[in-house]
Amino acid sequence: MPAGAFDELDAIAAITRRTGRPRAGEVWAGDDVAVLHSPAEQLLVTTDVMVETVHFTRAHSPLVAVGWKALVSNVSDIAAMGGTPFAAVVGVCGAARSDLVALYDGMLEAAQHYRCPIVGGDLTDAHELVISLTVLGRATDSAPVLRSGAQPGDHVFVTGPLGASAAGLRELRADPGASGANVDAHQRPLARVAEGRAAGAGGASAMIDVSDGLGLDLDRLATASGVGVRLGEVPVAAGATLEEALGGGEDYELVFSAPDWGEILGSFEDAGLGAPIRIGEIVEEPSLRSLAGQPLPPSGYRHRMDGSGV
Amino acid sequence: MPAGAFDELDAIAAITRRTGRPRAGEVWAGDDVAVLHSPAEQLLVTTDVMVETVHFTRAHSPLVAVGWKALVSNVSDIAAMGGTPFAAVVGVCGAARSDLVALYDGMLEAAQHYRCPIVGGDLTDAHELVISLTVLGRATDSAPVLRSGAQPGDHVFVTGPLGASAAGLRELRADPGASGANVDAHQRPLARVAEGRAAGAGGASAMIDVSDGLGLDLDRLATASGVGVRLGEVPVAAGATLEEALGGGEDYELVFSAPDWGEILGSFEDAGLGAPIRIGEIVEEPSLRSLAGQPLPPSGYRHRMDGSGV
Repeated sequence: MPAGAFDELDAIAAITRRTGRPRAGEVWAGDDVAVLHSPAEQLLVTTDVMVETVHFTRAHSPLVAVGWKALVSNVSDIAAMGGTPFAAVVGVCGAARSDLVALYDGMLEAAQHYRCPIVGGDLTDAHELVISLTVLGRATDSAPVLRSGAQPGDHVFVTGPLGASAAGLRELRADPGASGANVDAHQRPLARVAEGRAAGAGGASAMIDVSDGLGLDLDRLATASGVGVRLGEVPVAAGATLEEALGGGEDYELVFSAPDWGEILGSFEDAGLGAPIRIGEIVEEPSLRSLAGQPLPPSGYRHRMDGSGV
Repeated sequence: MPAGAFDELDAIAAITRRTGRPRAGEVWAGDDVAVLHSPAEQLLVTTDVMVETVHFTRAHSPLVAVGWKALVSNVSDIAAMGGTPFAAVVGVCGAARSDLVALYDGMLEAAQHYRCPIVGGDLTDAHELVISLTVLGRATDSAPVLRSGAQPGDHVFVTGPLGASAAGLRELRADPGASGANVDAHQRPLARVAEGRAAGAGGASAMIDVSDGLGLDLDRLATASGVGVRLGEVPVAAGATLEEALGGGEDYELVFSAPDWGEILGSFEDAGLGAPIRIGEIVEEPSLRSLAGQPLPPSGYRHRMDGSGV
């Protein structure tokens, strides 16, 4: 054990006691690997790494919120396929013991909320705090909804107003003690798992989560599909600017295309969800990205160097 | 994209071109998540994080070897369940572009060797180099072989001599230009996937890979099983010391218990593998750890703060 490491076994024992009991027939932490029931059909896998000062600062997010958001951002990638998460593994580097407890508080709270237990992990020393998460999911009510299936004539929907997270960050930068709905949206975002399933069940042709900004994420969807996008109006969260709604990211709303508006509305209603907001349409011209007749730049925060999120 | 990041899209495009084509019906990098065929029964998941200066130094391992070893050490955890790896996702933080290429060279070579393609990942800036890997596997010829199934009277086997990796590291510390079998064992270890499957098929009752040192890893197996271990003699790799064989780690040989010596030998022979070496037996007294009548300390390198490897 390198110098500076805290008592690993104590810390792990404290954490694993809190992850809950494995499901019947499963083995979680404590062996070489976790043993899980395999989903019946397709397996969804996503991984993300969050680095202090690159992806978050403690000044704007307490570590319990960082832990929550780390898990939620990965769950959101599963949601963006119309899938359901079922397990996570986590790697944490460079966390002092008290920091680790706070991080895990947040991750475990999100794990419980999304029924996505943390089934294993790895803790190591490092000079900076790095959180690595891999979330596994299953396809649920539909085949996985890729980014690449949008067709000219499809409607474009978003599951809610955008920009709240960026507005909350702006408020926190002005006043670290700020609170309210936008601060909550920044520190404790929600993944739209039920909405993603409803979109898939309603025939969504392509879907992505708004993690880096609508402009950038919608550009990725359109590029993958080889189509253009013409937007009318974008719903802006209360207290947010249009720029924050278009480029802020981390709202984790889902944006998707679908050929049949009525089928989408029916599917959301069947699921007991509010209707998604139609914001535009898919067009044939592959280079078109417009909002209210003006060019829509692929703005957003490219902190994920892969540009893919997988 | 934070200051200092290289051109992410270029780098990712170069890498994803090299991961090969997805299997039919699968989606790898480029969407929100990777979509994989689900294994028929049990799913095995393991994750590890490697941090520069904590787990490796470039002075003793070129980055291509670091990449190889990062993947192999996770594949080894799958092997220690008697499983077969089928996919990996990787997170890399803080790698300059040329470093990233070298790392991926090594990871992709290992991925090809073990038929464990890298199906997605995440790249970010950071101040130090961190590699996070999650490997997925399937149970193959047997139910997953846990650490906890050893029974008094079982034989204890190891799949090969130990200490070569530690000896290689010692040679490299004395002479960074050193070469030979032990240096290869340190820089380019092999995971014993075929051996793990043969052990499982031959009725192994408990198994673990020697990643942190025989003393420590065997102590974990015995503790999980609630049994003691009495060893006779341990095979020491040529050029290694007994201390290196017992405490060196990173050999990735498998150590396992099994009730029927003949069945194990037959299973290894059927698989075309050399016979594993019997090194002792499982005993009832749960606190016993002995080698040739002397106490066997749980020595080894506790760089994994979870003590589990999952």
